[in-house]
Amino acid sequence: MTLTAPGSVQADVHARGPVPPCPARGLVCRNCGATFGLIAEHACAECFGPLEVDYDPELMKAVTREQIEAGPQNIWRYAGLLPVGQDPADRVSLDPGLTPLVRADRLAAELGITGGLWVKDDSANPTHSFKDRVVSLAATAAKGLGYRKIAAASTGNLANSVAAHAARVGIPSFVFIPSDLEPGKVVQSAVYGQTLVAVDGSYDDVNRLTSELAETDEFEDTAFVNQNVRPYYAEGSKTMGYEIAEQLGWRIPAQVVIPMASGSLLTKVDKAFRELTAAGIVEATEWTIFGAQSAGCDPIATAFDNGWDVVKPVKPTGIAKSLNIGNPADGPYALDAIRRTGGSVGRVGDDAIVQGIRDLARTTGVFAETAGGVTVAVLRQLVEDGRLDPAKETVVLNTGRASRPSTRSSRSSAPPTASSRR
Amino acid sequence: MTLTAPGSVQADVHARGPVPPCPARGLVCRNCGATFGLIAEHACAECFGPLEVDYDPELMKAVTREQIEAGPQNIWRYAGLLPVGQDPADRVSLDPGLTPLVRADRLAAELGITGGLWVKDDSANPTHSFKDRVVSLAATAAKGLGYRKIAAASTGNLANSVAAHAARVGIPSFVFIPSDLEPGKVVQSAVYGQTLVAVDGSYDDVNRLTSELAETDEFEDTAFVNQNVRPYYAEGSKTMGYEIAEQLGWRIPAQVVIPMASGSLLTKVDKAFRELTAAGIVEATEWTIFGAQSAGCDPIATAFDNGWDVVKPVKPTGIAKSLNIGNPADGPYALDAIRRTGGSVGRVGDDAIVQGIRDLARTTGVFAETAGGVTVAVLRQLVEDGRLDPAKETVVLNTGRASRPSTRSSRSSAPPTASSRR
Repeated sequence: MTLTAPGSVQADVHARGPVPPCPARGLVCRNCGATFGLIAEHACAECFGPLEVDYDPELMKAVTREQIEAGPQNIWRYAGLLPVGQDPADRVSLDPGLTPLVRADRLAAELGITGGLWVKDDSANPTHSFKDRVVSLAATAAKGLGYRKIAAASTGNLANSVAAHAARVGIPSFVFIPSDLEPGKVVQSAVYGQTLVAVDGSYDDVNRLTSELAETDEFEDTAFVNQNVRPYYAEGSKTMGYEIAEQLGWRIPAQVVIPMASGSLLTKVDKAFRELTAAGIVEATEWTIFGAQSAGCDPIATAFDNGWDVVKPVKPTGIAKSLNIGNPADGPYALDAIRRTGGSVGRVGDDAIVQGIRDLARTTGVFAETAGGVTVAVLRQLVEDGRLDPAKETVVLNTGRASRPSTRSSRSSAPPTASSRR
Repeated sequence: MTLTAPGSVQADVHARGPVPPCPARGLVCRNCGATFGLIAEHACAECFGPLEVDYDPELMKAVTREQIEAGPQNIWRYAGLLPVGQDPADRVSLDPGLTPLVRADRLAAELGITGGLWVKDDSANPTHSFKDRVVSLAATAAKGLGYRKIAAASTGNLANSVAAHAARVGIPSFVFIPSDLEPGKVVQSAVYGQTLVAVDGSYDDVNRLTSELAETDEFEDTAFVNQNVRPYYAEGSKTMGYEIAEQLGWRIPAQVVIPMASGSLLTKVDKAFRELTAAGIVEATEWTIFGAQSAGCDPIATAFDNGWDVVKPVKPTGIAKSLNIGNPADGPYALDAIRRTGGSVGRVGDDAIVQGIRDLARTTGVFAETAGGVTVAVLRQLVEDGRLDPAKETVVLNTGRASRPSTRSSRSSAPPTASSRR
């Protein structure tokens, strides 16, 4: 069994337009600048810094609006700006993306925003969260790198996306979850017929286990999507930035508010805007990026407030579970993007998060997960204390759909510890 | 307060291309052929037959592929073929549509289908079901007809879509639900901040109540989306047919399998194919339409098997609740489309429905609601008994996403009676 299964053959309808060249020329360490080939590593062999995909700027410049618009109605229309998947036959994908950019005039009116407000609603992806974007890139890279299976540790969105991608192409996947997860959460991953491993322990225990498993002979042909193929995985988030610009009529918005867990999504939206500008696909302009965290897990907010370059890990609490990464891998890079663009970071408590979910649903009809509530509540805070300019066009990101609440009484499971990374 | 609220102003990005003329010239009775203006009625004043939108064929012929492709990335790209919403400023809409057409090669291989198999996945709509299509048309028509509020009786998808549409534009809505609904189902409609009326009774009681309320002075400015504006509501389903043809590269598939509740969706997909052909947007070809029902609610299947022209009401049972309409309003018209195209009707029991959900998820990564399980199980049945040609290209419709199962023990609520219509 290999990653080339019947389902991975893309139909003609998804293969519109010519195949662009691959613009990726290697991996580069974001810390020390050391360069590597397009390998399956996420940490620099020199300094253990995070590796990122490095592109040929000339190949990026060759990409045009017209090429993109003639492409498929999903993330692969941007294949000329991505590290993998130029040839439709190479893709392992649910074909996510091109989710609605919703005009939020009623929310804008309530908040006093006069410059225009939009919600990028990623709950419209195939498994209903933005994770489909990153898993499509990771799984496609995994295939190209010779892996035969994919895996992840997760308790929610990522687990569902990995299992669904594996089901689509008919390869084995392993999703590791804490054994005390609510049955309602488990069923979605389980229904795809993939391997679901319930681990007796906390989320953090599960994450540590998968890091160790990735090094064993048993899993040498398995790509852990946000571990050994993380540089490719992370690039999937760029497509949210590309789509926002395209859906605004090839224009970068003046202000963007983005929820932060690892901080990766925020850095990649900023990267997408820089790439579109450098490639001449949009006109050069200035933009400001704001980060959103919950008060229960605010290490990047604290570093921002104190002017630190490094992020001090915390032990997460609170209801915004999909954002509860106490030791965010991309925290320093998120801080850099926020400071460079003149932005700021807001943090909100659980009551404000619930109110944010209600405000968004009540004024736009978008029913968001808690991360969306964090972002909308932070937007309100930023306007109220004058950090965000209400006269400028603003986009907020909703990363996934609300889950129906369990009717079981809430359980007091141990929160993930500082080293967790989901 | 009127239906023209700040949120109903569509942004420039959604208003691409010129505004096409409205092709609707009136309503026509499908039973006796009597014609009416574009009024707010669903039953013929002459014979009580169902009213349908009547179009000017010359205006339909003026619509081109190029116009459609230059339009917005949602159902409104087909505005030139719809009864309302040509001008973006007139729309009351979540802008649904252009959901993925998923190539299902692994499911095809398991079933022995060699001609190509696709799943049209409407769980990617804003509130995660195809109801967003019909509610967008109904709410837009309601605005044009001078209504100030919208309403519906429902227990699931329709309730969520109505409440979300009202929230988007900031108008009042009334969603009537049985009081014994599971809390998890109620919260999604409730979060939109709209009026939720819990009625002490069965689904059928709720439906009867709303029919009576629609006639009262209290609700004279309220459009009940599938009652007094039903002719417009129903036309929204045509967009699934248009999208299938466009996503196949402007080609009508040889075979389509469609779940049936009222039977309306099936008749409208057939109508969409006929319209595209008559307008010269696709090449003339033959297609065959198959209907899918659950064994717990199979009045159209029974009528088909017995060669009846009329449908005898049944008392629905079984897990496919969104299909449990015992007295299907469009049953005779669905039978006509199926017979005219040389199709057939399949029925499957609850065990096969669960297996259908599993088969689809396991082979495509699409996690469907029970209606999707019915359709996939019927597809298997039709192939196995030779009614569907495995050598021909086939499309199956998934009308919505799976809900997380409640962790409460299942309750034995009274099934809806034969006159229910949701």
